[in-house]
Amino acid sequence: MWNPCPTPSEPAQRTHRTERTHRTERPQRPEPSQRPRPSEQESLPMAKDRMAALDAHWRAANYLAVGQIYLLANPLLTEPLKPEHIKPRLLGHWGTSPGLNLVHTHLNRVVAERDLDAICVWGPGHGGPAVLANSWLEGSYTQTYPDITRDAAGMERLFRQFSFPGGVPSHVAPETPGSLHEGGELGYSLAHAYGAAFDNPDLLVTCVIGDGEAETGPLAGSWHSNKFLDPVHDGAVLPVLHLNGYKIANPTVLARLPRAELDELLRGYGHDPIHVSGDDPRRVHRELAKAMDQALDRIARIQQEARGHGTARSGKGQGGKGQGGGSRGGTGRSAGNERPRWPVIVLRTPKGWTGPAEVDGEPVEGTWRSHQVPLSGVRENPEHLRQLEAWLRSYRPEELFDAEGRPTSLVLDCVPEGTRRLGANPHTNGGLLLSSLPMPDLDDFAVPVDKPGASTHEPTRVLGGMLARVMADTAERRNFRVVGPDETESNRLGALYEATGKAWQAEVLDTDEHLARDGRVLEVLSEHLCQGWLEGYLLTGRHGLFSSYEAFVHIVDSMVNQHIKWLKTSRELPWRAPLASLNYLLTSHVWRQDHNGFSHQDPGFVDHVLNKSPEVVRVYLPPDANTLLCVADQTLRSRDKVNVIVAGKQPCFDWLSMEQARAHCARGAGIWEWAGTENGEREPDVVLACAGDVPTQEVLAAAGLLRTHLPDLAVRVVNVVDMARLMPTSEHPDGMADSEYDALFTADKPVIFAYHGYPWLIHRLAYRRTGHANLHVRGYRESGTTTTPFDMVVRNGLDRYRLVMDVIDRVPGLAVRAAPVRQRMADVHTRHEAWIREHGTDLPEVAEWTWSG
Amino acid sequence: MWNPCPTPSEPAQRTHRTERTHRTERPQRPEPSQRPRPSEQESLPMAKDRMAALDAHWRAANYLAVGQIYLLANPLLTEPLKPEHIKPRLLGHWGTSPGLNLVHTHLNRVVAERDLDAICVWGPGHGGPAVLANSWLEGSYTQTYPDITRDAAGMERLFRQFSFPGGVPSHVAPETPGSLHEGGELGYSLAHAYGAAFDNPDLLVTCVIGDGEAETGPLAGSWHSNKFLDPVHDGAVLPVLHLNGYKIANPTVLARLPRAELDELLRGYGHDPIHVSGDDPRRVHRELAKAMDQALDRIARIQQEARGHGTARSGKGQGGKGQGGGSRGGTGRSAGNERPRWPVIVLRTPKGWTGPAEVDGEPVEGTWRSHQVPLSGVRENPEHLRQLEAWLRSYRPEELFDAEGRPTSLVLDCVPEGTRRLGANPHTNGGLLLSSLPMPDLDDFAVPVDKPGASTHEPTRVLGGMLARVMADTAERRNFRVVGPDETESNRLGALYEATGKAWQAEVLDTDEHLARDGRVLEVLSEHLCQGWLEGYLLTGRHGLFSSYEAFVHIVDSMVNQHIKWLKTSRELPWRAPLASLNYLLTSHVWRQDHNGFSHQDPGFVDHVLNKSPEVVRVYLPPDANTLLCVADQTLRSRDKVNVIVAGKQPCFDWLSMEQARAHCARGAGIWEWAGTENGEREPDVVLACAGDVPTQEVLAAAGLLRTHLPDLAVRVVNVVDMARLMPTSEHPDGMADSEYDALFTADKPVIFAYHGYPWLIHRLAYRRTGHANLHVRGYRESGTTTTPFDMVVRNGLDRYRLVMDVIDRVPGLAVRAAPVRQRMADVHTRHEAWIREHGTDLPEVAEWTWSG
Repeated sequence: MWNPCPTPSEPAQRTHRTERTHRTERPQRPEPSQRPRPSEQESLPMAKDRMAALDAHWRAANYLAVGQIYLLANPLLTEPLKPEHIKPRLLGHWGTSPGLNLVHTHLNRVVAERDLDAICVWGPGHGGPAVLANSWLEGSYTQTYPDITRDAAGMERLFRQFSFPGGVPSHVAPETPGSLHEGGELGYSLAHAYGAAFDNPDLLVTCVIGDGEAETGPLAGSWHSNKFLDPVHDGAVLPVLHLNGYKIANPTVLARLPRAELDELLRGYGHDPIHVSGDDPRRVHRELAKAMDQALDRIARIQQEARGHGTARSGKGQGGKGQGGGSRGGTGRSAGNERPRWPVIVLRTPKGWTGPAEVDGEPVEGTWRSHQVPLSGVRENPEHLRQLEAWLRSYRPEELFDAEGRPTSLVLDCVPEGTRRLGANPHTNGGLLLSSLPMPDLDDFAVPVDKPGASTHEPTRVLGGMLARVMADTAERRNFRVVGPDETESNRLGALYEATGKAWQAEVLDTDEHLARDGRVLEVLSEHLCQGWLEGYLLTGRHGLFSSYEAFVHIVDSMVNQHIKWLKTSRELPWRAPLASLNYLLTSHVWRQDHNGFSHQDPGFVDHVLNKSPEVVRVYLPPDANTLLCVADQTLRSRDKVNVIVAGKQPCFDWLSMEQARAHCARGAGIWEWAGTENGEREPDVVLACAGDVPTQEVLAAAGLLRTHLPDLAVRVVNVVDMARLMPTSEHPDGMADSEYDALFTADKPVIFAYHGYPWLIHRLAYRRTGHANLHVRGYRESGTTTTPFDMVVRNGLDRYRLVMDVIDRVPGLAVRAAPVRQRMADVHTRHEAWIREHGTDLPEVAEWTWSG
Repeated sequence: MWNPCPTPSEPAQRTHRTERTHRTERPQRPEPSQRPRPSEQESLPMAKDRMAALDAHWRAANYLAVGQIYLLANPLLTEPLKPEHIKPRLLGHWGTSPGLNLVHTHLNRVVAERDLDAICVWGPGHGGPAVLANSWLEGSYTQTYPDITRDAAGMERLFRQFSFPGGVPSHVAPETPGSLHEGGELGYSLAHAYGAAFDNPDLLVTCVIGDGEAETGPLAGSWHSNKFLDPVHDGAVLPVLHLNGYKIANPTVLARLPRAELDELLRGYGHDPIHVSGDDPRRVHRELAKAMDQALDRIARIQQEARGHGTARSGKGQGGKGQGGGSRGGTGRSAGNERPRWPVIVLRTPKGWTGPAEVDGEPVEGTWRSHQVPLSGVRENPEHLRQLEAWLRSYRPEELFDAEGRPTSLVLDCVPEGTRRLGANPHTNGGLLLSSLPMPDLDDFAVPVDKPGASTHEPTRVLGGMLARVMADTAERRNFRVVGPDETESNRLGALYEATGKAWQAEVLDTDEHLARDGRVLEVLSEHLCQGWLEGYLLTGRHGLFSSYEAFVHIVDSMVNQHIKWLKTSRELPWRAPLASLNYLLTSHVWRQDHNGFSHQDPGFVDHVLNKSPEVVRVYLPPDANTLLCVADQTLRSRDKVNVIVAGKQPCFDWLSMEQARAHCARGAGIWEWAGTENGEREPDVVLACAGDVPTQEVLAAAGLLRTHLPDLAVRVVNVVDMARLMPTSEHPDGMADSEYDALFTADKPVIFAYHGYPWLIHRLAYRRTGHANLHVRGYRESGTTTTPFDMVVRNGLDRYRLVMDVIDRVPGLAVRAAPVRQRMADVHTRHEAWIREHGTDLPEVAEWTWSG
């Protein structure tokens, strides 16, 4: 079956090992120059007893992985295996487990020997059994879940709970100690690893990448992350590309590249590959240990070299034109060319290694057949039962666990202690390390508003000022980043460059601006990378903001799904500390695609997010600059949320003073008395509701028209900032009670709702309300290209004239009396459409309109 | 400003050139061996007059690109430029245009000289002005849009319409002749190119990849597509990586790699790079022409070598165990190692080349400042106006266009004719080449159903049989492919391998199965690649199916958005012929994640798609095997749609005979009389509605329980297959009239709707219906992991017992009378939950339930 390493015939028995508690403070770490350096001796071939210990640990982890997949009872094989010891449903994935166990075992050694602050991101899918096995062995599992004790009883519970109702999933997941990475959907491990490493200069982030995962686009794009990693201020990422050759039913692309071609690829990614390959455990242990030492020596050298003269060179990271973090000569080239070549380990071992070589005459070990459960129907098939027992016994459990089921000292010989254990490193439970952002006084950035609509500002530019202050105030602590797909300046957040640069480790030319080795704005034309980096950064206890064009944020729909799932689950785990929220600023939104057209129109991310766990998701549509400031402040202070802010970057009327904005945001939705014509004594005749900056402007313009043309109509204007307020309290924690809803929208009056996105979202949020039948929503429908600011508004009938017509059509008794007004509105609406087609601009009376309330 | 090539002082004037009409038949192409081979002479340095012609064409295209961005009038500069000649709003992107024009110009030459059947996928964003300019020059634009004549008047209209209301977008788009690629969202060009090349052995697909686009994950992952391209049965893809150095405001990663590192990367991707670089047009023309010849010679050589012995070698592509499309020796290695190294051209020219070198003292040409509109405020700024005129005149329009504004013969010297023109190749209007699939008789695959619920089948396995027949019947024509992220077998479609193999050009080992060079199943662990390949395949007039796990199809949310936008727009263009639909089979759906858990649960793709253009999107939830066959047949015959089918792969009761299934699918929703207890004389007391296989089963089980326990209750069972039927006719072409809806669901009786996905989707589809207030929906809510078939059903309250309780709670007058039944149901529901937690299996009475109608 397989050929294990020799072990001492009498392994020392372990009896006690004190459990350590989590250290919640950030541990003091030695400066790079003081960090333990590998001794000469350690670079020599490993001593035989270390090898034996490594092999014992690996065998123990493999045993525990198999046990989780198969066993309900008899965990130590103290009696012959019987059908009733086997789970009734065999779930889980063996194929990737031995490889992950091998990497974990060898990481244990180097972490312990070098006293490394290290974590590992486990990329391959269905890696649960392996990581759980290792966590149980090192004791971090029992520390986290005291009922899963490190003895035979705990082992049985560990086995039983795996892929069992009420138990733990087959992936690495929030429930897994030491994980910050959900292993269900593939492709994000390397981006997460880089996110974890940014601004964590003393952290080593190992990342195991499966060769299946490596085929995904996001993973393929993540390799270039090293162009954004500053060896001075950031930690190191050590990718371990695990080529076990197969995914579910097919060979993998990278495993079938000729070795020379694979090397070119990895060097092209900026890495130096170190290969380890084989199916003889002795040789692989030796080679992998050597490879790990080589890689870590190289990383230490890179960091020492960079840091030796790095601080003097890269300064404080203050922005500035063309700064490259280094001296630039007449060649137009800078120190950026000195980007180090980081190591990558390529580990080539058989899929399902050490498992059954053959089952029912078909080869299994080393093939795709070992992907899931190599032996099926074990309860019913005596031969399979026999094979399973032989497989389990091949690990020689009697050498690995004492009579009470505790791991022997040989097994634990290389395991690090305390928070150095991979399952107990606080960076993987980032909330433990989280400190609040230094939030500035919003009044410092507020735009003055003496009366509504008297001035305009670009809301995101105003926000940029505040973000720049946060960026400046975190210059020391370095726990805040802004990411975006090359849109930070386009999205009017350029003020950030007064406080920091754009991270860039490649060549810098004279014409470049704001590039800096130590910059904390991350710009890369990949929403996947932006999202993955930010997730990794947040999951390790820092803060950030993702600014993106609204339409293209759908690129990360699936990633945000998984992050929301992570947050939902981790909120339910008392041992997981709250994280800073994932904050989106979506701009270049659907109503202002005059420059870009149909391909850039999509307001559906809001719908996507609002399908998800209500305790996690929030959507904000601030109508002006001051409310945007207020909402941004709220989201940057919040925890364990995914906050979506949709706000324009084009000039927008200032409606609310900072004080009014605060009050409005606190309520999340409210009546704008100054905009309506209610007299306060009776219910209004009609409610004009709005959510979003452009709809708000059109509703106010419509309210102005109604005031002029139908002065005795009692109009109420309601603005909604926090979309979840529209939901019932039973559906969302921010939801309004029916009484509140009726007080705002009335129970029986027509409500004309001008909404930013697809109109049916409002219906889906409000369908349970009493007055739902009176709700008429105007919003976006797929409509094609557009090229003036108001073109799309007019096309979608969200314009002021159409809204006034809606009011006349829906307020009982108004049809006849207001027919002339309606006709006038219809005429201007039509004239506006025609004007746009002819002149390429908007009707001057619309383009130059101002609020005269 | 720039240094153009010398041109003859007296360019020959063109007077007439007959417009050619589209050839709608597939042109007869010579066999590879007969194809024109480059002569020795053609490999020599190009003659000077050809160089002059190329340069003239390039200048003309550049002139037209600038004109589109700036000019409303005076297109030929027959008078000095005045403010009123300038567009009031300057929109568009100059930066990428000169590079695209250069590539187009040089493609013209090789296509004409070699009589190539060639198309080009234009990847860089905002490439509209360039591709439109080229189409106008070659005449394909006027042929497509006769009002845009190839003269001064037409030139003025060409300029005016660009990024103007009612005009054309700034991207390559459906409106662009010769395009099959929407240039709005970046990252998909190379995947589209490969999709176009599959099964088009005589087609050359050039693909310009922007260096911004190259940073995206999907593009980064697409490079490995060459491992799936068969040089015998597929065409060639020639990537042109255009490094102009900048994206919106930042340098690009690939442009700043040292040349050696970039070469390693491209070789690692399996390509041989050919470099062209410079800012001297003469030199660049010379080098690019040479590079194109080199690349095409190399491609011709690869194809000749492969095809010389290819047919004998790879056989008919019939599946078979371990077949590698080649002889395999004892080494376990096969001809797969002979994968050719395809060429890639790396073109490095300045961004905004030939544009203003400096504006207002800042460098522009060759920097990110030339990304959009290099000279702004031209109407108001006389110096900018002067600069614009100088820029336009630098192309010497008087040499390029005659007095009537027609391109001179020098300009047109290298332009190919007829359908060889890039803007007129029918592969880019694939509907012209589309032939219907040979759809088999469904009765050949139908499962026999004498009475409902008496047997079970895995629906997707039944479908697999039909798909295998289609695959076999297209063995000659090769116009059908099935794509999936390594899930075809897992999704029970393995029968396909009886008809074809899995495309694979890399190493093949003894343990592999069904790999074949010429296989038409495409499996790669990247939903992005699957989607991009299939889109390219469909857009060039072929058919296909994408099978995926339901949860992970969100990975391509944004891609499907863009494809729906493409279809919506192209449906409105009379010259675009209808395409085969993009068909999704989503399986491993949300209700059967007993193996995988929370990360694999997401039914929201349906919601995502239903937000989009109703004329394009369809969602089907077939409840059993025969309806799945019927729906699949319908979608494979349909045109210009995106069809989403959600169907389980686990054993499912057979409810309908093939005949019943046909009738049910034709209606899209209907009453299942046999399942209910109506007597037909009065309206039922309650409607049990269902959509989706698991909800249908639970509703039928609930109906059975009601029949037993409350025999005098009149229960109607309604099943919905086509989700759009629930929408009003005003909202969707498949929508039901209110009268039909009321006839099915009643206007006032309680409706308990068991739905596959998020429950609010049903409310959002049905909120306008009379009886909406009586609608109670049970569906999926984010709920965590799960591990038995019924675990999730029970957790979400979608189980039969909970549904019966819902009926009792909602039918007026039943509460007291049926209290004991309700209590019994509540008890079993609770007992089931507890049983699952204890035993890891379902309550036997549920697991073993059968319909006893």
